Amino acid sequence: MTDQHYTLLVDCTDAKGLIYKITETLYINGLNIVRNDEFVSAEENYFFMRTEVTGNVVATDVVEQLRKVLPDAANIRLVKKERKKLVLMATKEHHCLSDLLVRTHFNELNAEVTAVISNYDSLQNLTEKFSIPFYCISHEGKTREEHEAEVLAKVHSFQPDYVVLAKYMRILTPGFVKGLEHKIINIHHSFLPAFVGANPYKQAYNRGVKIIGATAHFVNHELDEGPIIAQSIIPVNHQMDATDMARAGKDIEKLVLSNALRTVLDDKVFVNGNKTVVFE
Amino acid sequence: MTDQHYTLLVDCTDAKGLIYKITETLYINGLNIVRNDEFVSAEENYFFMRTEVTGNVVATDVVEQLRKVLPDAANIRLVKKERKKLVLMATKEHHCLSDLLVRTHFNELNAEVTAVISNYDSLQNLTEKFSIPFYCISHEGKTREEHEAEVLAKVHSFQPDYVVLAKYMRILTPGFVKGLEHKIINIHHSFLPAFVGANPYKQAYNRGVKIIGATAHFVNHELDEGPIIAQSIIPVNHQMDATDMARAGKDIEKLVLSNALRTVLDDKVFVNGNKTVVFE
Amino acid sequence: MTDQHYTLLVDCTDAKGLIYKITETLYINGLNIVRNDEFVSAEENYFFMRTEVTGNVVATDVVEQLRKVLPDAANIRLVKKERKKLVLMATKEHHCLSDLLVRTHFNELNAEVTAVISNYDSLQNLTEKFSIPFYCISHEGKTREEHEAEVLAKVHSFQPDYVVLAKYMRILTPGFVKGLEHKIINIHHSFLPAFVGANPYKQAYNRGVKIIGATAHFVNHELDEGPIIAQSIIPVNHQMDATDMARAGKDIEKLVLSNALRTVLDDKVFVNGNKTVVFE
Amino acid sequence: MTDQHYTLLVDCTDAKGLIYKITETLYINGLNIVRNDEFVSAEENYFFMRTEVTGNVVATDVVEQLRKVLPDAANIRLVKKERKKLVLMATKEHHCLSDLLVRTHFNELNAEVTAVISNYDSLQNLTEKFSIPFYCISHEGKTREEHEAEVLAKVHSFQPDYVVLAKYMRILTPGFVKGLEHKIINIHHSFLPAFVGANPYKQAYNRGVKIIGATAHFVNHELDEGPIIAQSIIPVNHQMDATDMARAGKDIEKLVLSNALRTVLDDKVFVNGNKTVVFE
Repeated sequence: MTDQHYTLLVDCTDAKGLIYKITETLYINGLNIVRNDEFVSAEENYFFMRTEVTGNVVATDVVEQLRKVLPDAANIRLVKKERKKLVLMATKEHHCLSDLLVRTHFNELNAEVTAVISNYDSLQNLTEKFSIPFYCISHEGKTREEHEAEVLAKVHSFQPDYVVLAKYMRILTPGFVKGLEHKIINIHHSFLPAFVGANPYKQAYNRGVKIIGATAHFVNHELDEGPIIAQSIIPVNHQMDATDMARAGKDIEKLVLSNALRTVLDDKVFVNGNKTVVFE
Repeated sequence: MTDQHYTLLVDCTDAKGLIYKITETLYINGLNIVRNDEFVSAEENYFFMRTEVTGNVVATDVVEQLRKVLPDAANIRLVKKERKKLVLMATKEHHCLSDLLVRTHFNELNAEVTAVISNYDSLQNLTEKFSIPFYCISHEGKTREEHEAEVLAKVHSFQPDYVVLAKYMRILTPGFVKGLEHKIINIHHSFLPAFVGANPYKQAYNRGVKIIGATAHFVNHELDEGPIIAQSIIPVNHQMDATDMARAGKDIEKLVLSNALRTVLDDKVFVNGNKTVVFE
Repeated sequence: MTDQHYTLLVDCTDAKGLIYKITETLYINGLNIVRNDEFVSAEENYFFMRTEVTGNVVATDVVEQLRKVLPDAANIRLVKKERKKLVLMATKEHHCLSDLLVRTHFNELNAEVTAVISNYDSLQNLTEKFSIPFYCISHEGKTREEHEAEVLAKVHSFQPDYVVLAKYMRILTPGFVKGLEHKIINIHHSFLPAFVGANPYKQAYNRGVKIIGATAHFVNHELDEGPIIAQSIIPVNHQMDATDMARAGKDIEKLVLSNALRTVLDDKVFVNGNKTVVFE
Repeated sequence: MTDQHYTLLVDCTDAKGLIYKITETLYINGLNIVRNDEFVSAEENYFFMRTEVTGNVVATDVVEQLRKVLPDAANIRLVKKERKKLVLMATKEHHCLSDLLVRTHFNELNAEVTAVISNYDSLQNLTEKFSIPFYCISHEGKTREEHEAEVLAKVHSFQPDYVVLAKYMRILTPGFVKGLEHKIINIHHSFLPAFVGANPYKQAYNRGVKIIGATAHFVNHELDEGPIIAQSIIPVNHQMDATDMARAGKDIEKLVLSNALRTVLDDKVFVNGNKTVVFE
């Protein structure tokens, strides 16, 4: 029987012997470790481990055995490498959407895009070039709640593994996020926590900064406050006005978003309270 | 007569023909332009020009001629490359101070250090290794105003061109800054405007950022709000706690401070409202 | 009459008074300078100036006037901002091509793509999504010279301003380059001059480097030796094999190529022997 | 009894169950894992693991137990965090030496400097400011072999853990390196493998690169060819001549060297053939 490739993800309160107990179970099941990453957060006394193994097992059996040797509250997942399902949301700017459409079209991310949802139709033509269904759900003439309910119903109809806000420029209410915790990834056009809120490039220009950045993060109930997955920056100078900065910023936005998404899709990201553990 | 090297610095409201009028004057005086940098801030309709020339002139004469062809309110300076006088201020952390002491000791900056002032004596031994006078002015048992008055008197006694806050950890009052506008350079241990105020590395750790930075800026009457001269960053990750981040941050702090200071000492920085123009 | 936006490009042997003479001519013609960049290469005693002006003139008249006051051998161009025509060449890898197709589709570069030429048909489907003509000119069963002649005829049929080698993986002969000097831009998948030639990522992996890069350069008669326009890098580590490095490298390749191309299309790049002057 | 902090370093041919066997041994000995890093080089089928543990053991006993469960040829070390002994070698440039003298003076590296050796006396004054013995061993009037023998005798007299070439500008013969394999760390003033050999900044200027770098590496018998520990870069532009590049390069040289040295001193670096594994 051909060897399978699995990823084991464990997190629990730290205790002596965790790695030993986990790797003993893997060894008994004839699994070979090809990569192992581990982190103990001293502050929270909490243990994270991600282990890539090859072999052939019944995954639920191995998880059952691990459950017996690990603390009761441990989170344990043993997953095969499978393409995740994504729903992308956007507004009018194309740069992040086109980047993700191209990458998924050429199978460069461990995912397929099942739908694009937007509150405008500007990006319909682009989306359909890649044969992806596009849903325009306008917010006009609707309350925020009505619009969100409509969007949410559409999102849930696809049962996505992750929702990616690829420059979706409307604020989400806590109601939207509930039930999708750690499943919505946003790209924020600034080096958070600098310049939260609207028009960050204008804010950056006015402040005269010499660097601008972008932040990919999980969305939680508080705007721009969820766990950060990835950040990057580019230098700017006095020659650049707010428009130039926005133009330059787009390149870093799409790069940060796709890098963050790659690590999430490869099961390399744990959420640790309001922080992340990223085993790059 | 040997050719001299001068730098001409002009800033004024923008108007048609400024470069022509300035360079005509330089040409008439037999000056050869070896480097020219110019910037017009569209938003403020304001003109900045920095010109390095070689030749032999009476500087005041040339400035006088330029004054006749330029707008009345123009700022005009024609300076020879001369070593500036610095007063350094520090508290207990050595990294920025030692970097500047070493660089000036080996003549790598266009400056000499005339004194180091600190509110503790921790760095006296280091300073005196480089034969620089060290003044410990303790703040203990004094009001902020009393302490500042004492420090300010000491600063002024050296008539420095610039005061460098090389990790001076006390807040300066507007009274201190007055009369030293654009002459005090501070290094702030964060990527401003993120994490203003105290303990930025602890703040950064708690927020779970993936990048930390440092900002060199002129000090004005509002804490951490003066014109930014230079910024830089380094990536961090989940393995690093606040102490690790502070350790890593020190390397970037001293590099940003010395780079910012170099551009200031080489007369490459104009202040433009609350922003800077840096002709690197 | 509405003001036009022109860019003046001058390069010639350095001499006293050049900026004065140029700006006097501009002033006499009622042109307002909105941005001026100048550089003198001390080693070659050579002068470069790029000036953006607004106003309304007959361009050929201004150039004629400039010719009278500048050295005989001066190169003088006064151009309006017009979209350049590009021919893109690729082989099988899509990342640079798709990036340029998307950017030009959304008018983010000062250019239109008139054709894509490839020696394989792998990228035909992608290209045609953006309604750009695709020409597959296979090299099979042809000598290098025969194939190049065919490609060159196709290229010339479009009279492009620039030819972009967006991962065109065949070596060009000096014969191909002749007549297209400084008009062909290539992206090399390494930090030149490290790892010239084939399989740079495999070379980089074998050498155990901690950083990989990409280089955009003009193509001249010597492979990988033309004037460099832009370079950038990303860190790598021991976890990454040659395939991982190649994957990571693609992101930096396309970013470097589009940034280099942007500066070329905006007339910000001068060639200075085997170096470039880039007024970013 | 107070808990001790140990680091376990194991490398051997890969096999199933290695992590399990190692962590079982640690568990049996009551050791608690606070950090674990592991890497399997697929190409060489070779296993590396670094484990920080707390507890109280007789180190030789634990190593003995590990030897019984691990492959015969395994390298096994269990070390307490102890300050390493360094000999620094330099020539005339101060920047790397002063950086290391300051950092070790303030206990920022896990090391003490026992001596500085130079073939000139230029840096004697600097070294002695920090109360470190300075030995000037001139190469004048000596064959390379005679000079090296003298230097080597001096080096060995201090029995250093590591020898740091802090801009020591003489080529070492294989005879010097023999017996000090993986114990000599050099900083090379270029982004290796670009610009090997002499005058890399002049080479870089002539090639018109847009980025310059620095490389810290272990020294082996072939010049500039040893395993790379760390690299970093800074952007440069057409304004900078070879001297400017050298000046800018110094900042990155000293940063790369101290970062590489820190990881080595913290036992985070394994040599893997001509590559390194760095558990940062």
